[in-house]
Amino acid sequence: MTLLPPASPFDIVIFGGTGDLALRKLLPAFFRQLQDNNIPKNSRIICASRAEMTTEQYRSDVSKALAKFYPASSHNENTLKSFLKLITYVVLDVVDSKNQGWQEFVNLFSKTSAEKTRIFYFSTAPALFAPISENLSLHKLITPASRAIMEKPIGRDRESANAINDAVGKYFPEDCIFRIDHYLGKESTQNILQFRFSNPLIDAIWCGKYIKNIEITASETVGLESRATYYDTSGAARDMIQNHLLQLLSLCTMERPKSLQGDDIRNEKIAVLKALHPLSPSEIKTNSIRGQYIEGTAEGQAAPAYATELGKKSQTETFAAIRSTIDLPRWKGTTFCLKTGKRMNEKRTDIKITFHNDVDLFPNAPKNKMMLDLQETNDITLQLNVRSIGFSQNHDGLRPLTLEGSYSPPAGVRTPSSYETLIMSAIHGDRSLFVHREEVDAAWKWIEPILNSWEVNVPALLYYPAGSSIPRFADSNDA
Amino acid sequence: MTLLPPASPFDIVIFGGTGDLALRKLLPAFFRQLQDNNIPKNSRIICASRAEMTTEQYRSDVSKALAKFYPASSHNENTLKSFLKLITYVVLDVVDSKNQGWQEFVNLFSKTSAEKTRIFYFSTAPALFAPISENLSLHKLITPASRAIMEKPIGRDRESANAINDAVGKYFPEDCIFRIDHYLGKESTQNILQFRFSNPLIDAIWCGKYIKNIEITASETVGLESRATYYDTSGAARDMIQNHLLQLLSLCTMERPKSLQGDDIRNEKIAVLKALHPLSPSEIKTNSIRGQYIEGTAEGQAAPAYATELGKKSQTETFAAIRSTIDLPRWKGTTFCLKTGKRMNEKRTDIKITFHNDVDLFPNAPKNKMMLDLQETNDITLQLNVRSIGFSQNHDGLRPLTLEGSYSPPAGVRTPSSYETLIMSAIHGDRSLFVHREEVDAAWKWIEPILNSWEVNVPALLYYPAGSSIPRFADSNDA
Repeated sequence: MTLLPPASPFDIVIFGGTGDLALRKLLPAFFRQLQDNNIPKNSRIICASRAEMTTEQYRSDVSKALAKFYPASSHNENTLKSFLKLITYVVLDVVDSKNQGWQEFVNLFSKTSAEKTRIFYFSTAPALFAPISENLSLHKLITPASRAIMEKPIGRDRESANAINDAVGKYFPEDCIFRIDHYLGKESTQNILQFRFSNPLIDAIWCGKYIKNIEITASETVGLESRATYYDTSGAARDMIQNHLLQLLSLCTMERPKSLQGDDIRNEKIAVLKALHPLSPSEIKTNSIRGQYIEGTAEGQAAPAYATELGKKSQTETFAAIRSTIDLPRWKGTTFCLKTGKRMNEKRTDIKITFHNDVDLFPNAPKNKMMLDLQETNDITLQLNVRSIGFSQNHDGLRPLTLEGSYSPPAGVRTPSSYETLIMSAIHGDRSLFVHREEVDAAWKWIEPILNSWEVNVPALLYYPAGSSIPRFADSNDA
Repeated sequence: MTLLPPASPFDIVIFGGTGDLALRKLLPAFFRQLQDNNIPKNSRIICASRAEMTTEQYRSDVSKALAKFYPASSHNENTLKSFLKLITYVVLDVVDSKNQGWQEFVNLFSKTSAEKTRIFYFSTAPALFAPISENLSLHKLITPASRAIMEKPIGRDRESANAINDAVGKYFPEDCIFRIDHYLGKESTQNILQFRFSNPLIDAIWCGKYIKNIEITASETVGLESRATYYDTSGAARDMIQNHLLQLLSLCTMERPKSLQGDDIRNEKIAVLKALHPLSPSEIKTNSIRGQYIEGTAEGQAAPAYATELGKKSQTETFAAIRSTIDLPRWKGTTFCLKTGKRMNEKRTDIKITFHNDVDLFPNAPKNKMMLDLQETNDITLQLNVRSIGFSQNHDGLRPLTLEGSYSPPAGVRTPSSYETLIMSAIHGDRSLFVHREEVDAAWKWIEPILNSWEVNVPALLYYPAGSSIPRFADSNDA
């Protein structure tokens, strides 16, 4: 629930300052927030990396990155000047605590009050999160006003995730750790809780008595291309389901929080993630699907197979679907289904709610449905039944009517990017949009047996031509 | 719930055959139903009136009326010929049982099986309903397969309504009497029950726990003009609220019927009409409004006062609003408000549902709203809350979003007129769209004390310029 009072001045350190994320997302996010007057005076952006360059050279690179990734920035010479002035660059080998850079880095904070908000943004490979934390501690840079922002991926299984969280947790208390899942920063994702809990009409029917199925889909038409080598170590379930889709599911299914405070929200998300019904070995066979694309078409063009892009055979899934239930009284009667895939025939990110149709008087009534589109269009649609005009005997004289509303912003209102929202939330100390380590753990705990089963090819990997429609469970009742 | 299997052949007698209703509405309705192949062979339409003319002359008048009120009919010469053949005209003085017409009339049925559906449509002044019934009985024309369709107005108070219903009821059993309220024949009115009871999402929130206010409005921009003399004996409440708006309210608030059979539906309508909270003398002062238009504007033109149109001063209301509650457990927490007026600034017929906004987490949440537009456009809209884009602190970071659906028919589907639907329902013996005498009585019982109070000018008649916006209660919470 990100509301924005004025922030206090802060220092933010971006480890991985020359990386793609920093230049493409983080710095443009700060620039836009500066334009919106949300960056208080005396704030600093300190970017650290091993690359040898001066602050002036780095600022020049930032300038170019802004021109590329946020072209509108070039129209505002003055803001650009002010923005670049916020930035300091430090050459730093984060692993080697004795290198010259650390001393320079420490010096940057020598005159800084310990009360000033200090944010360490870990925009590096996860393997560096532990040594960065250790060295920050060694150099006594972790004040009570310090926070760590952690980028994904946090591990590739439960054990490796816990190892990372333990290592960082040695130096930062959990409530100072802000784990990024950029889906949580999307306006349409944030809307889920507001939509559920500010509308008595929605709140009233948000349970297993009414909801038959919650289907969360994130599909893409693109393939892997240059990312195949990395992706092959991950796969669709680790890349999308363990984090993004389970986060969306937790927002859709958590109980009403005591308040809108971050920890009250996160406690309820943890509770529901812990209550996900674990699939037994036999359930994994029937309630999960894994696939890999072979050659086909994408947007009218011939598209190569995943194995071709990768350059070798692989058992990694590029499509994954998992279906289960939630072991909570509220969700008795509801199935959920999480689906994601590359090289599908459509690009979609949405939540489709299908309601039970136990209607005494109209045994053939079509099911009520609701769709929350989480993409740019952000439509919300509700399908209800109305009378078929005239004298109809089909479907008990009913026909479905779709009510549509566009959630896109009113004219003149700019939609902030996920990273703007997440960075500003961290600056304000609002943890509601960040992932608690218990959420990470519960998600891994639930999905790990499924991934393990997949390792031994149960169920068997399916092959689908690029451009296929999204696979469905054979006995699917989710339509 | 009008579904239409093939009908058996029928005879229908329209008393008042030369009247405006017959020529403007009833005969065009039959014509269109013939086009749709819903009039079985060997059916007859017998039109009776005092006017001296032959069947040929009458058919010629019907032809002209069709050309005027249903121009599309002229494009179908063959159907027109078939249609006119269905029609027989009889000169009949319905009051005088001994006149020549009655013998001719009786002869029309001499060769007709007593099992053939026989419908007597009372499209005359209500004063004639009793003598028509009596003479039909006298001439032994009322078979077990006979039905009477009664047009409004049924009385101008409880006593006179009961007198009419008693007089007709002497000859026709209640389940053979089909009282017309043409609002019940509208598609959008019929949709109310289907919308309520075929959608689990709507059914779940349709009670006082969720609904704060049900406001039913029927406003017009037109004045009285040539109808003023008649209207002055009635007024807005008798003309619209006692019948149409209370019928709509009963559909909105009745309990779930045991089945969709006519009597099961009507029993629940009767139950809720009997449970309308009667206004005490002091409640009438604060919960009713009566007004009369004075000179003003209508559609940009100067418009005269009601008294000018009438040609004398009058205390008759041209606007009426009544607010009350329903003494049933389901409706604890809900207020209803019925409003109607002539010469208002907008033409509207709609049902506006406003929901409670007792939302713990969002104390400033805008109220959820639903609107059923009963006019041609037939839109259904639902106003829900969504997140205000970005970092907003207004209204708890919420903004209302309206979901819209148009209930208008799919391409190629024709919307039957109210009279088509009602006539065909009567022919099929489906009573669901007709008003039971207990409904008429309960409506009069509830409204009569209010009308009596108005007779003594409590509350005082307000004067509003033609073209005013619809008055609201001073302490209104219905927005």
